[in-house]
Amino acid sequence: MKKKRLFKKLGKKTGLPPGSLVHIGENFNQATKIYLMDYNAEELEENSLESLQDFKKIEAKKEVLWINLEGLSDTAVIENIGKAFELPGLLLEDVLNTNQRPKIEAYEGYLFFVLKMLRLEEESGQASVEQVSLVLGKKTLISFQEKSGDVFESIRERIRKKKGKIRQMGADYLAYALVDAIVDYYFVILESFEERIENLEETIYQNPDQSTIESIYQLKKEIIFLRKSIWPLRELLNNLFKEEPDLISEKLYPYLRDVYDHAQQIVDNLELYREMLSSFLETCNSQLSHRLNEVMKVLTIVATLFIPLTFIAGIYGMNFKYMPELTWSLGYPLVWLLMLSLAGGMLWYFKKKNWF
Amino acid sequence: MKKKRLFKKLGKKTGLPPGSLVHIGENFNQATKIYLMDYNAEELEENSLESLQDFKKIEAKKEVLWINLEGLSDTAVIENIGKAFELPGLLLEDVLNTNQRPKIEAYEGYLFFVLKMLRLEEESGQASVEQVSLVLGKKTLISFQEKSGDVFESIRERIRKKKGKIRQMGADYLAYALVDAIVDYYFVILESFEERIENLEETIYQNPDQSTIESIYQLKKEIIFLRKSIWPLRELLNNLFKEEPDLISEKLYPYLRDVYDHAQQIVDNLELYREMLSSFLETCNSQLSHRLNEVMKVLTIVATLFIPLTFIAGIYGMNFKYMPELTWSLGYPLVWLLMLSLAGGMLWYFKKKNWF
Amino acid sequence: MKKKRLFKKLGKKTGLPPGSLVHIGENFNQATKIYLMDYNAEELEENSLESLQDFKKIEAKKEVLWINLEGLSDTAVIENIGKAFELPGLLLEDVLNTNQRPKIEAYEGYLFFVLKMLRLEEESGQASVEQVSLVLGKKTLISFQEKSGDVFESIRERIRKKKGKIRQMGADYLAYALVDAIVDYYFVILESFEERIENLEETIYQNPDQSTIESIYQLKKEIIFLRKSIWPLRELLNNLFKEEPDLISEKLYPYLRDVYDHAQQIVDNLELYREMLSSFLETCNSQLSHRLNEVMKVLTIVATLFIPLTFIAGIYGMNFKYMPELTWSLGYPLVWLLMLSLAGGMLWYFKKKNWF
Amino acid sequence: MKKKRLFKKLGKKTGLPPGSLVHIGENFNQATKIYLMDYNAEELEENSLESLQDFKKIEAKKEVLWINLEGLSDTAVIENIGKAFELPGLLLEDVLNTNQRPKIEAYEGYLFFVLKMLRLEEESGQASVEQVSLVLGKKTLISFQEKSGDVFESIRERIRKKKGKIRQMGADYLAYALVDAIVDYYFVILESFEERIENLEETIYQNPDQSTIESIYQLKKEIIFLRKSIWPLRELLNNLFKEEPDLISEKLYPYLRDVYDHAQQIVDNLELYREMLSSFLETCNSQLSHRLNEVMKVLTIVATLFIPLTFIAGIYGMNFKYMPELTWSLGYPLVWLLMLSLAGGMLWYFKKKNWF
Amino acid sequence: MKKKRLFKKLGKKTGLPPGSLVHIGENFNQATKIYLMDYNAEELEENSLESLQDFKKIEAKKEVLWINLEGLSDTAVIENIGKAFELPGLLLEDVLNTNQRPKIEAYEGYLFFVLKMLRLEEESGQASVEQVSLVLGKKTLISFQEKSGDVFESIRERIRKKKGKIRQMGADYLAYALVDAIVDYYFVILESFEERIENLEETIYQNPDQSTIESIYQLKKEIIFLRKSIWPLRELLNNLFKEEPDLISEKLYPYLRDVYDHAQQIVDNLELYREMLSSFLETCNSQLSHRLNEVMKVLTIVATLFIPLTFIAGIYGMNFKYMPELTWSLGYPLVWLLMLSLAGGMLWYFKKKNWF
Repeated sequence: MKKKRLFKKLGKKTGLPPGSLVHIGENFNQATKIYLMDYNAEELEENSLESLQDFKKIEAKKEVLWINLEGLSDTAVIENIGKAFELPGLLLEDVLNTNQRPKIEAYEGYLFFVLKMLRLEEESGQASVEQVSLVLGKKTLISFQEKSGDVFESIRERIRKKKGKIRQMGADYLAYALVDAIVDYYFVILESFEERIENLEETIYQNPDQSTIESIYQLKKEIIFLRKSIWPLRELLNNLFKEEPDLISEKLYPYLRDVYDHAQQIVDNLELYREMLSSFLETCNSQLSHRLNEVMKVLTIVATLFIPLTFIAGIYGMNFKYMPELTWSLGYPLVWLLMLSLAGGMLWYFKKKNWF
Repeated sequence: MKKKRLFKKLGKKTGLPPGSLVHIGENFNQATKIYLMDYNAEELEENSLESLQDFKKIEAKKEVLWINLEGLSDTAVIENIGKAFELPGLLLEDVLNTNQRPKIEAYEGYLFFVLKMLRLEEESGQASVEQVSLVLGKKTLISFQEKSGDVFESIRERIRKKKGKIRQMGADYLAYALVDAIVDYYFVILESFEERIENLEETIYQNPDQSTIESIYQLKKEIIFLRKSIWPLRELLNNLFKEEPDLISEKLYPYLRDVYDHAQQIVDNLELYREMLSSFLETCNSQLSHRLNEVMKVLTIVATLFIPLTFIAGIYGMNFKYMPELTWSLGYPLVWLLMLSLAGGMLWYFKKKNWF
Repeated sequence: MKKKRLFKKLGKKTGLPPGSLVHIGENFNQATKIYLMDYNAEELEENSLESLQDFKKIEAKKEVLWINLEGLSDTAVIENIGKAFELPGLLLEDVLNTNQRPKIEAYEGYLFFVLKMLRLEEESGQASVEQVSLVLGKKTLISFQEKSGDVFESIRERIRKKKGKIRQMGADYLAYALVDAIVDYYFVILESFEERIENLEETIYQNPDQSTIESIYQLKKEIIFLRKSIWPLRELLNNLFKEEPDLISEKLYPYLRDVYDHAQQIVDNLELYREMLSSFLETCNSQLSHRLNEVMKVLTIVATLFIPLTFIAGIYGMNFKYMPELTWSLGYPLVWLLMLSLAGGMLWYFKKKNWF
Repeated sequence: MKKKRLFKKLGKKTGLPPGSLVHIGENFNQATKIYLMDYNAEELEENSLESLQDFKKIEAKKEVLWINLEGLSDTAVIENIGKAFELPGLLLEDVLNTNQRPKIEAYEGYLFFVLKMLRLEEESGQASVEQVSLVLGKKTLISFQEKSGDVFESIRERIRKKKGKIRQMGADYLAYALVDAIVDYYFVILESFEERIENLEETIYQNPDQSTIESIYQLKKEIIFLRKSIWPLRELLNNLFKEEPDLISEKLYPYLRDVYDHAQQIVDNLELYREMLSSFLETCNSQLSHRLNEVMKVLTIVATLFIPLTFIAGIYGMNFKYMPELTWSLGYPLVWLLMLSLAGGMLWYFKKKNWF
Repeated sequence: MKKKRLFKKLGKKTGLPPGSLVHIGENFNQATKIYLMDYNAEELEENSLESLQDFKKIEAKKEVLWINLEGLSDTAVIENIGKAFELPGLLLEDVLNTNQRPKIEAYEGYLFFVLKMLRLEEESGQASVEQVSLVLGKKTLISFQEKSGDVFESIRERIRKKKGKIRQMGADYLAYALVDAIVDYYFVILESFEERIENLEETIYQNPDQSTIESIYQLKKEIIFLRKSIWPLRELLNNLFKEEPDLISEKLYPYLRDVYDHAQQIVDNLELYREMLSSFLETCNSQLSHRLNEVMKVLTIVATLFIPLTFIAGIYGMNFKYMPELTWSLGYPLVWLLMLSLAGGMLWYFKKKNWF
């Protein structure tokens, strides 16, 4: 089996002063790409930046400016953005450290979200985790992604085609829409889990073997990892309600409560899966031990039946000069009779004891 | 074994703007039916609507108007009702998504409940789950059900026959009556569980086998699923007390406390069942392993007894030319004596060791 | 084994309007009996009522009136009492439903307690549960019991013989005294558990068998049921402190704190018993599997010892025409030597491996 | 094994009015002894009282009066002290009931502590539990012990020799010093546990047997009992901070926080021990089952190897008249060849399967 | 196996008055060394003190004075420092008792931290724990370490080379930097754990044996110990936020929140490791028992196959005078036919039963 890394690299930063910008995570060696969407209810302007010189031009001319950044390996770009928008050093550090837990932090003039975006890899069908950081300002939203590819395509479509009310709303609604898209995609992951759980259940009652147990452990491990990504999200959204930050208008509260309900529902489901997998494991072990017991019972019955008979045959295989039975003319049939009645008696005893 | 779907479909809605009306759940392909009951202490008017054109006529002419809607697959109907009563989009979305957890939400002018209605299916004796959403306004109560058939028949009777004080009270009392009917029916489900638990206990002490273990796991799984539906209900009712919404008159509080007590009692009972089932499983496994041990002991005793004897018989079955014992005239009886005393000694040893 | 009902009947009331009086519980077919004690510091009047006509005469003439009612099957009596003292319908409903969890509720002018009274049945030595409801008014205390026989006899004696200060105090003190008597009797139950636990421990280390395990599970089940009755009591008493109802004078607070301490102590002890029983189970299973291992080891040693020897004997039992060893004059003793040294070698190996 | 009582007697008091003074606990039949220490910064007067007549003379002439009482079987003495210092009946009742959980209660003019004093018995090395009650007044401290012998000797020395600042401080400091001495001694108990745990760990990896498992359970049980005594202590000290009673001067707070830290540390350690013991048990069981598996493997290999060979020998031991092989001149060597190559093949198979 | 001490010595101090200075911990017999760093934004003065006479000279001449002290065995030095800076006795006592849990305490003019510094020992690769106490005053920071060697070298470099803003900030920032360095090093420890976990996982699926199980337990034990050191840290930092002490400027709050996030992340990871190790254990045990089952199955098949055949051979090895089969000319081939068809039938049965 090829060894797959279980963990991402943690903390290679030990010893540097706080606020030092170092990219911690898997290195995708990918050029940083920046997409801009600047829109209000009437107009929409889309741009993509690839050279650093273009930075000064970034400016929210319309109602909302969405700066989407993919690829974190070029720390210079991150630093420039930080300077352009006066973002604190600790915030940028957190953007680059892709081992953060989901969290929300209020900075002066900014609200900072760290989230985990899950996506099903198309070939393997396994979930991959990517950190998405959102920096919400008054009229701007900056989103940082680890690599290209995301779950936001439908939001871009809604902006372009004026679907829903996204074009009438501010940057806070855009932030909500991104969070909502991430959380909605969790349900796709959950569905893939449910499919695997259903397949497992079928196997368990029909034909369980050692590999079934390994599949259960494998799935359990994935759920443990997933839960680690999702668990703090609920808390995050709950804190958002309590702190009621200025940057988020009250009109958004019902929407956020809706996201919170979804996060709660996901956590509930993960708990349910865990309980079911534990139950599967127990069932599976019970099935396997039941099978072994069946095998052992057959051994016991066969051995217990034939060992005494073999002993009797052994007796009359002895070469003593004086063994009267050997010369009886009915000796041989009588021994058969003895052996058959002994075997019959034992079978009757086993039957009575309910052994088969 | 035929494969039964373990889970309902989750979130096929990914990518749509919030507030889009999509029916998520099992598709019953059932025409939406609407029943109206409009009553005050003196009068009662019952109607059923089947065409959409009749919608404009809906209006609370008397004290309380109960609009009961069965079947959610026709989203146009839901949308029309939403427009007629000015219900928010997120609320309607939750009505259609039948994977909600039980919850309560306050909207302007409305109180919104999501509940799970359980019913015993008559043929199979298994519990089926259906989502019921209640929208409580000043003088109206709208109830949305997934399919026809419910536990509210007794309430309709009480309205028709003026039993109890339901005709004197407002829409909030009607909402309470519906919640109470749903919760009361949970006890019927609990009773069916209790019957099965009692049967299981009898089996465990009399004649447990592998299928008993499977029954226990089956029941445990049902309890896990049921608890998922009921657990948030307690919290829901507790929140209701804390928020003290305007739409519910203070006179109703003792009644709601009563429902809360019932929900608490149900959760207590489910915990108790879980503990008992765990205990059953342990007992059952202990019984089964005890049986296997009995079988193994018999094997051990028989094998340990006869193996040495067979060896002795084997010795005197050898064909050596010079084996003095073979020619002794008492050789054969002496060997029997040796074997019997050996067997006796071993039996005495086993007895002393308390093996049988 | 005769099947004993594990559970009482739940909720046969589904479908009735709230406040309908139906007796839920085991039907004792017992006439309702009412005892009155009306007393102040100087005087005491005792009466017993058996006909319903006497009801109007009930009136607190002295300081405290204690109405003790045994037997709940006659709902008409309960209803009459309810009317006489203007008790709310929901309260009476709870009195009749004997599956309530222990709780406390404040109604206008009344404080309502539901408690579980445990008593050791004299023949079987098992604990039986009975629901006791107390309705505390300004000068009256009404106690409802399921059947005759209670743990209050000592309180009646104290009232009759003016022991302690019960005759100087009000109805709230009487209520406290009843609760205290119920809680004190729990300790008697605990003692019977402790005795059984001590006996079990002795058995486990001396002579455990399958029935020991069943006894442990049996005791564990009883503790689970008992805990369900007692657990909410602590919470109940704690709520009493927080709400500080008018009907209970401040002088009683130290006494109530005392009862609370006792309830806490009982819950602590039940937890301790549970932990010990779990530990017993593990020990017992470990002992039993240790025994099986001993048995298996003997089998292994005997079989491993004799199987090779029997093979050797089998070799020289073959009837080949040309087997040189058979004609050696020392053949037979040499085979014995071979077998004995083989056996000796194996025994030495087993000894070295610490197998016996 | 001699049966040791697991539990102390609970509640033999059922049926008496509250405030009745009955000694509940093991009866030491020991005369009550009273020691007095009356001191201020300059002077110290020590006395011991043995007759009841001396009671009236007790009076705090100097700054602090410490009345230490050993032996609770003589309830008359307790009652007299109660009268002399106007202590409430419920307090005295708690002093005499030695099954209390550690707690703190504020009475008018008094602060009442119940603590558990642990001491290592010198011969057996086992921990014995004794209840110590402290009644802290303005200038007096009364301490009640179950039997003679305590952990306070060093405090008496500090008072006599003016070590530390105990002579400059009030009765509250003395109370703190006593609590501190009791808690400090817990660490001695913990050390004895740690020694036993270390010995157990050594045994587990070297030579575990059934008795090792029993020792682990034994230690686990002692830790469960100990935790029951210590757990409420932390809560007690925490409550002391919250209530900030008048009788304790603010200067003492850092000291009390220190004791609280110790209690927390003890609870942490007990949890750690429990986790380690659970881990030991698992390791031990795994070791034992590993051993059994080794034994079973040897059996399997020997049996699987020789059973087919014995069968072959059996074949050529048959007495058929016409068995061509028997007359071949190379029959015997060929059979040996067959058997050896069969055995070799099986050994090679076992080796490949990694069975030995 | 050499016995390694599991626990440090606890509480050898029993019986001394509070505030007595005794060094509790492993005695390193190491001279106490004191390093001074006195700096402001422009200047830096470094000194090391080795004789006690130099003490009076200690004085913060510049903005921040960092006194770093290594080695606690010389209590006289500690006492002198205590006098020089007027530190309370209880604080010094805690500095010397190296079994403290991590905590924070506010004294007049001082904030006192106790932390656990972990370091990987270079040879063994195992984590060693050392207690670090920090006393934060207005312009001074005193750090106490148990032995020489620490994780602060990078901070000293930052001070010397003016890296980051440490030279512009006060003593509170220095304290933060030390705590941050300690917490950052925890990630190095976590990485070493992760490496071991990954190796274990590989082993489990490829070639598990008894020593794998022991490695898992070993790692689990280390994680339990580590968690005990780290767990209270989170609480500590949380308390810091709540109490908002004067000595820490508001500018530091984002930094402290950052450290808190890290501590949370570490605790999350430790929990994850624990869950994974439990899962590994189960997998490993399941693998090992699967192997044993495979072995047992082979035994069963071989034994069940040959025992009846051997019996048949035994039959025709009997020496009865009158056994007709023996004289049949086709007797021998017929017996072979019988045995082969019996063996074939059993193999077919085993195959059908899916035994191999």
